[in-house]
Amino acid sequence: MSTQRTQVAIIGAGPSGLLLGQLLHKAGIANIVIEQRSGDYVLGRIRAGVLEQVCVDLLDEAGVGARMHREGLVHHGIELAFAGQRHRIDLSGPTGGKAVMVYGQTEVTRDLMDERTANGAPIVYEAEHVEVHDFDGSNPRVTYLKDGVRHEVLCDFIAGCDGFHGVCRASVPAGAIRNFERVYPFGWLGILADVAPAADELIYSNHERGFALCSMRSKTRVRHYVQCSLQDKIEDWSDARFWDELKSRLDPEAAATIPTGPSIEKSIAPLRSFVAEPMRFGRMFLAGDAAHIVPPTGAKGLNLAAADVRYLSRAFIEFYADKTAAGIDDYSRKALRRIWKAERFSWTMTSLLHKFPAGAGDTGDVGFKLQMAELDYLVNSPAAMASLAENYVGLPFEE
Amino acid sequence: MSTQRTQVAIIGAGPSGLLLGQLLHKAGIANIVIEQRSGDYVLGRIRAGVLEQVCVDLLDEAGVGARMHREGLVHHGIELAFAGQRHRIDLSGPTGGKAVMVYGQTEVTRDLMDERTANGAPIVYEAEHVEVHDFDGSNPRVTYLKDGVRHEVLCDFIAGCDGFHGVCRASVPAGAIRNFERVYPFGWLGILADVAPAADELIYSNHERGFALCSMRSKTRVRHYVQCSLQDKIEDWSDARFWDELKSRLDPEAAATIPTGPSIEKSIAPLRSFVAEPMRFGRMFLAGDAAHIVPPTGAKGLNLAAADVRYLSRAFIEFYADKTAAGIDDYSRKALRRIWKAERFSWTMTSLLHKFPAGAGDTGDVGFKLQMAELDYLVNSPAAMASLAENYVGLPFEE
Repeated sequence: MSTQRTQVAIIGAGPSGLLLGQLLHKAGIANIVIEQRSGDYVLGRIRAGVLEQVCVDLLDEAGVGARMHREGLVHHGIELAFAGQRHRIDLSGPTGGKAVMVYGQTEVTRDLMDERTANGAPIVYEAEHVEVHDFDGSNPRVTYLKDGVRHEVLCDFIAGCDGFHGVCRASVPAGAIRNFERVYPFGWLGILADVAPAADELIYSNHERGFALCSMRSKTRVRHYVQCSLQDKIEDWSDARFWDELKSRLDPEAAATIPTGPSIEKSIAPLRSFVAEPMRFGRMFLAGDAAHIVPPTGAKGLNLAAADVRYLSRAFIEFYADKTAAGIDDYSRKALRRIWKAERFSWTMTSLLHKFPAGAGDTGDVGFKLQMAELDYLVNSPAAMASLAENYVGLPFEE
Repeated sequence: MSTQRTQVAIIGAGPSGLLLGQLLHKAGIANIVIEQRSGDYVLGRIRAGVLEQVCVDLLDEAGVGARMHREGLVHHGIELAFAGQRHRIDLSGPTGGKAVMVYGQTEVTRDLMDERTANGAPIVYEAEHVEVHDFDGSNPRVTYLKDGVRHEVLCDFIAGCDGFHGVCRASVPAGAIRNFERVYPFGWLGILADVAPAADELIYSNHERGFALCSMRSKTRVRHYVQCSLQDKIEDWSDARFWDELKSRLDPEAAATIPTGPSIEKSIAPLRSFVAEPMRFGRMFLAGDAAHIVPPTGAKGLNLAAADVRYLSRAFIEFYADKTAAGIDDYSRKALRRIWKAERFSWTMTSLLHKFPAGAGDTGDVGFKLQMAELDYLVNSPAAMASLAENYVGLPFEE
């Protein structure tokens, strides 16, 4: 068995873990990132692609923003399509000039991995049987198997950045954690294709046939989605069927002009709202998907993870620099307050834009009529558009 | 049989019918109001008590606003209570100085009845077997029985202002109308009591035990509500139990200081969202509760009726003065567009503030957590508060 010591043991090499590691490394706090999968596997996961201003700022702070600023697309608005028309929601005007950055999560992860390789901070891929121990005491440990050798990491703190299915949250005794979850009765069928975007900005469409989203990763790569049944199989959806269905849910202009082409990736994802409370268990802290999931409508998943990391990195830095546990003690409360607001926004956007089965007390398509009324109200109310915009670009932090 | 002729036959002597009659009378358009109940019965129904600015303006236009301005209470804000605290929502600041008027629907009706008596325009109470005929042709008729005599009213138009259970909507062939309805899994238990209000403004409270509302009719008469089960019976709710339950759902300060006293009325009402489309059938037009119901959270019922009457009275006046049917032809579309927005607001307020049973895909009390997040967001966001305020005081009219 090999034993080593660090200050913060970070479980998971997704964007949360890598960003936390980088921010701590820059602050001179020793840390190790331990990941069960290979780096290529992590990079192969297709995820979000819209970064809030606060996420952009944090990547800059971490010193990994150069390529993002070179290759990313700054968007100052989004479009809402319904009743055959598109309406633009200005993001920058009502938010003092804030915007979002279109830049794939995969690219963020790659930039963070490259930086970690460059600065030589320790990272272990393909760690098997990762386990977290003794986080309720003052000497937490992480153990794992690598190339047949058992490793033990002694540390001050464990950061659980290992996602929804990770080992950290699963290691908390059942009585010490409360789970809140809402599962939606539909999924998103998404494709990646190397064609030009449908429009300059993202199009979110509410149509009687269901929700559709025209998104992008760059000016030559798109990520489009249609709401689908959870019973659907990928084999049911040829590229031709996907494009036909997408077009049927867009306004006539977009439908007539959207560039199409063969998919290079196609997948179906369920939608859920999930929060685990609290986010601190003694000397273990959860961040990102390990603690919460949002439905992707509203593009909050990666951004919430970055917000957690912002709070958590500052708390650790304060602890080591000032010998005060104030930030650590307040982490869970502060993070959860912001998370629940993003959960609320993501749920609201999901409710506004998707086709839902009729509720128990519903007659006629009252849900669809209420959605149309809300959209009609929204695109004609500066106050309502400002509210959407401030949520979309990211609510301010509590300092 | 007695036969008479008028221009507009108005069915129903609630506020919609009486206000329409008064506006037409002032414009020199002959009309008769036909009501199945007695005047005292109509006045005995306890209904809404918060008038939008547009409703106030319309009552002034009708020349019946004097007592309202003398006795009514102008409110420039409302209070939201949750998590043990109250937060004020300013209505006037974000809406260019608009406000609402606290003045009971019963008083509005009384003022309109008094004016009708004073100006001598015809009104028939206790009309039995009211029937509407031939509204799909050019010579509509209304028949009824009064004191054993059959009466027939020949008219140009019929205005169906006879409420949700009225004869007008029920006389439309099933294939010509679409109903949209959402029924909520709870009711409101309301009491009227002659004590001072809980606070200067209305208090809307979201509490884990359920919704509560402290409203008022004057500085010496209150109308308070608690969310209750639809299985509850009035006999289950002594005054003492009501006040205890109400206090348990308020913030500590309001709970400690709220004046209590014996109820003078107590009733349980179900909550529903309902819209019938269209609102015109040949020469018959629906207005108010005959065409739509909102849950009372948001105080939109009477105000929507007034808005319908505003559109409809202008359409009739235009028709007789200018011989154009443009207003009449556009009535249903214009009214419904505004109605659906108010339905949306009422549903949103209901969803935000009530305790709902867990949904099919819910774990833990995720619905309550999302409500708390929405309230936390709302009371800290000027944009979100402005959106609530502009809806509460009444959205602008489409002219």
